[in-house]
Amino acid sequence: MTSVVAAFGDRLAGVFADRGRLCVGIDPHSHLLESWGLPVSASGVREFGLAVVDATAGRAGIVKPQVAFFERFGAAGYAALEEVLAAARAAGLLVIADAKRGDIGTSVAAYGETWLTPGSPLEADAMTIAAFQGVGSIEEPMRLAESAGKGLFVLAATSNPEAESIQKAVVQSGPRAGRTVARAIIEDVTSFNRAQSLHAFGSVGLVLGATLDLGSFGIDTAARVELNAAPVLAPGFGHQGAKVQDLARVFGSLSDGVIVSESRGLLQAGPAGLADAVAKRSDEVRALEAARR
Amino acid sequence: MTSVVAAFGDRLAGVFADRGRLCVGIDPHSHLLESWGLPVSASGVREFGLAVVDATAGRAGIVKPQVAFFERFGAAGYAALEEVLAAARAAGLLVIADAKRGDIGTSVAAYGETWLTPGSPLEADAMTIAAFQGVGSIEEPMRLAESAGKGLFVLAATSNPEAESIQKAVVQSGPRAGRTVARAIIEDVTSFNRAQSLHAFGSVGLVLGATLDLGSFGIDTAARVELNAAPVLAPGFGHQGAKVQDLARVFGSLSDGVIVSESRGLLQAGPAGLADAVAKRSDEVRALEAARR
Repeated sequence: MTSVVAAFGDRLAGVFADRGRLCVGIDPHSHLLESWGLPVSASGVREFGLAVVDATAGRAGIVKPQVAFFERFGAAGYAALEEVLAAARAAGLLVIADAKRGDIGTSVAAYGETWLTPGSPLEADAMTIAAFQGVGSIEEPMRLAESAGKGLFVLAATSNPEAESIQKAVVQSGPRAGRTVARAIIEDVTSFNRAQSLHAFGSVGLVLGATLDLGSFGIDTAARVELNAAPVLAPGFGHQGAKVQDLARVFGSLSDGVIVSESRGLLQAGPAGLADAVAKRSDEVRALEAARR
Repeated sequence: MTSVVAAFGDRLAGVFADRGRLCVGIDPHSHLLESWGLPVSASGVREFGLAVVDATAGRAGIVKPQVAFFERFGAAGYAALEEVLAAARAAGLLVIADAKRGDIGTSVAAYGETWLTPGSPLEADAMTIAAFQGVGSIEEPMRLAESAGKGLFVLAATSNPEAESIQKAVVQSGPRAGRTVARAIIEDVTSFNRAQSLHAFGSVGLVLGATLDLGSFGIDTAARVELNAAPVLAPGFGHQGAKVQDLARVFGSLSDGVIVSESRGLLQAGPAGLADAVAKRSDEVRALEAARR
């Protein structure tokens, strides 16, 4: 199928080239709302979100709203999120909805439709998704992403210590037998991307914590990825301690697709300081990235 | 901590005794909306949801709205869902929000707050949740459920074939080493419930497909559960082929807590036939259950 829309991977490569890899989290949890002097309400998350969009536009290229902090205010919170998503896209930012949805059949298809269909009220450029029911269960949103010029980031290895028992568990049968769950997911995603028409990156990416030793998850970061490499949404930079200097060491052959995701370290600059904090950090990340190449 | 609210497990036992185990899915996917003569829109899912609530009230005890089908209409869809949830709870139905959320830290806490906090716009009696980031990652919503008289159903073994590679993968280290992922989740949930004050069932339940051979997931259905057994949300009855007659064979020692979840087989009766279909099926399930005891 020839797509008339630009593929997500090509758009992402454009953002990397023009504005770098920094992704600013939009995480209006109660504590941050309070320290920003905003009410813990739908109007508070709306103001917070719009302020982060304003501070990021022109200074970095990507934002990642955490959906949970909007959803807790129900329909009013979602009305706020619709405004934030629209403002971010209108400002030319690439928007990754951090939704971590997952299901099967028509339900997971509806989640794809929610976040990835052009014209949907909650349209983003990409979303995060969990495949606890198997990568096969999310094939419909994977295909939707590919055909609609959208991206999907599948959780593979995450930074919280309690995740290890599942993500390092070993698959017992089928084509991924002997692989860890994290590696099996990576292989499933890679094989999906490889079967699509050629883009700078695949439409389906991975969530890999930047503070992890990926080798301990059975992930082979030396493996050559030749076509449509999966982009990597990598939380853990900044406040959580991962360093952009270590990007090549941590991510190996996946390094070129890494999105440097930071939230707390930037957001704690407050509404008055955020634009400067984003500009400074975005320049730092670009300089470190230039030095790496 | 002494709770002033009735525990979810005690409320569930009350529903089982008074109105049986049937749970009616509220799944307004596009195809069903069309066959019901409703628009594929927020107002369509609102009408559909309210009609299922009306048809179920007084005939069965539990409803399970699939959140994805409301979320795809954004804030308007969530306004519809708020109405459906409120109507269901006002009608005395126990409401399980089929949300399959999951995340870590303040994000997963916000999801718990969204669906389980008394007074929240999207308040339900219980929600489904995924623990791809480990059962430890969802401890905050587990504690919230326990303290607020709410329930949580954690995905463990699901019926779609692509789920096997992850759910049957074997944990390599830690206290659950040697267990499958599905079994490790069940043990974590059981151990959480056991540490709480005594209820008819634990506040934290499991999602286990009714069409599965649970033994093939390494799940020991003969294991005695002494305190606060996890209730089981079991999709797969009716249209998907599982039979209530087989409940004891499939679920063994978990049988007493099984919620018989049906969607398509009932919903395809259409708006005119649904109330009768629910009444008939609810009576059947109660009769089969009485015969089993």
